[in-house]
Amino acid sequence: MSKVTIDAFRVPHFKDKTASEGKNGSFKLASYDCAAKPFSAGGKDADRQQLSDLSLELDVLQDRMHAQTRERVLLVLQGMDTSGKDGTIRAVFREVDPLGLRIAAFRAPTPDEIAHDFLWRVHRHTPAGGELAIFNRSHYEDVLVPRVTGAIDKGECERRYAHIRHFESLLADTHTTIIKCFLHISKDTQRERLQARVDDPTKHWKFDPSDLEARQYWDDYQAAYEDALAATSTPEAPWYIVPADSKTHRNVMVATILAETMRTLKLEYPPAKHDLEGIKVK
Amino acid sequence: MSKVTIDAFRVPHFKDKTASEGKNGSFKLASYDCAAKPFSAGGKDADRQQLSDLSLELDVLQDRMHAQTRERVLLVLQGMDTSGKDGTIRAVFREVDPLGLRIAAFRAPTPDEIAHDFLWRVHRHTPAGGELAIFNRSHYEDVLVPRVTGAIDKGECERRYAHIRHFESLLADTHTTIIKCFLHISKDTQRERLQARVDDPTKHWKFDPSDLEARQYWDDYQAAYEDALAATSTPEAPWYIVPADSKTHRNVMVATILAETMRTLKLEYPPAKHDLEGIKVK
Repeated sequence: MSKVTIDAFRVPHFKDKTASEGKNGSFKLASYDCAAKPFSAGGKDADRQQLSDLSLELDVLQDRMHAQTRERVLLVLQGMDTSGKDGTIRAVFREVDPLGLRIAAFRAPTPDEIAHDFLWRVHRHTPAGGELAIFNRSHYEDVLVPRVTGAIDKGECERRYAHIRHFESLLADTHTTIIKCFLHISKDTQRERLQARVDDPTKHWKFDPSDLEARQYWDDYQAAYEDALAATSTPEAPWYIVPADSKTHRNVMVATILAETMRTLKLEYPPAKHDLEGIKVK
Repeated sequence: MSKVTIDAFRVPHFKDKTASEGKNGSFKLASYDCAAKPFSAGGKDADRQQLSDLSLELDVLQDRMHAQTRERVLLVLQGMDTSGKDGTIRAVFREVDPLGLRIAAFRAPTPDEIAHDFLWRVHRHTPAGGELAIFNRSHYEDVLVPRVTGAIDKGECERRYAHIRHFESLLADTHTTIIKCFLHISKDTQRERLQARVDDPTKHWKFDPSDLEARQYWDDYQAAYEDALAATSTPEAPWYIVPADSKTHRNVMVATILAETMRTLKLEYPPAKHDLEGIKVK
């Protein structure tokens, strides 16, 4: 195992007292190197082996949680286009029984979703007792996109941060462990990956011209992410910065964060409800 | 119109500073007379006429809101068994187009509902833009029943009050006007109404022996209501005490509160989206 700890990549906890400043002190997104591989085991082969081991462990942990039907886990994945949200889910959960997973992807809101508050559509997909839910994009889109496009002002954005903190506190109060990962890629990496989608016919379906438009606002999105992560990283729902220029490293790190967190939940198969001693099934 | 104002029956607003005391100063449920008829127009006939007028006005207000698709109204009805929640809905909305109403009744939670936080099941029934939603019982059951049965302790109850305030603040921030009515009946009135359910074969279906069990905890429920109303009456989601021993008065008063509130929303039919001048439909 690597000696680096996941704590070093946790966004400092939001403190109410700094709310009026709108900033979380020292946190700077740019200070994290997208190309770093702090959780790499040394090489690609070793990393793949580690990922495989972690995925198998996640399957065991998830199975115990499912049997216990008490704890819930919510993994939120956010990141710029091409940061690898889909790929992360595929790789990290390769060995995990899909019966115990609840994966929800959030795209541009529908008219019915727009007609409600911005947490309405995500609330219904939160995990039930024993479930591991994965949000591929999430309610955080609603403090990123409308902020960059100017659809909401600073005051509304701050109110939404508060609504998010309260909402996640409600979930945490009901045995929900929340883990939020920002898949951190460089602007160069995005260029390469978008170009690959243009050049490779099997990736054409993933390309949307609007991605190029969003790319023009790269700096604005980085700033919006920096503020949103700072305002919503809490002890009960922390954000982690995942260097994600390397796909292998990204997968290992997300799997590590999830496994380390789930290990603390004391997940055990529950005892038998009846005295089973001596029972012979005929 | 009566000279009494609905403000006189609004539960004083919860103030954070008194949270540590767990009490909302002067508010006492017992100080409200269940048999009072402050909104009566004088007699039964006059009251029925007034209710009819108000219901017709609510239909107009609701139609404008539906056309505007911006404002949302949420009416929460709570009260002891036989306090008349069903009857209120039937009488107040007699003249209102059911197409614009969304009525949700909440009974004992299902296993799927229990497996989530207590606001999960109500959030999905909150009104969309242009809708008037009515909650027949609500998320308040979860700070009443488990408190009286001892399923949750005082600390958990206080946390739930806070979750409710935050949740209702989220809704209010999205153009939702929240009106909460406590239908206030006396213990004697409940006895008469439960006895009628026993004696009248057409009301047998409404009788449940567990109602008699809950009646044994009458004082505990009154205390639980007093605390819950005090902790969750806010400027954006006020509680009203509705004297409800008289069914006619109860209906007139709920209709009055709703109409007075909706009149302040500046509901107007929106202007034409196109220049309609001179268009002749052939």
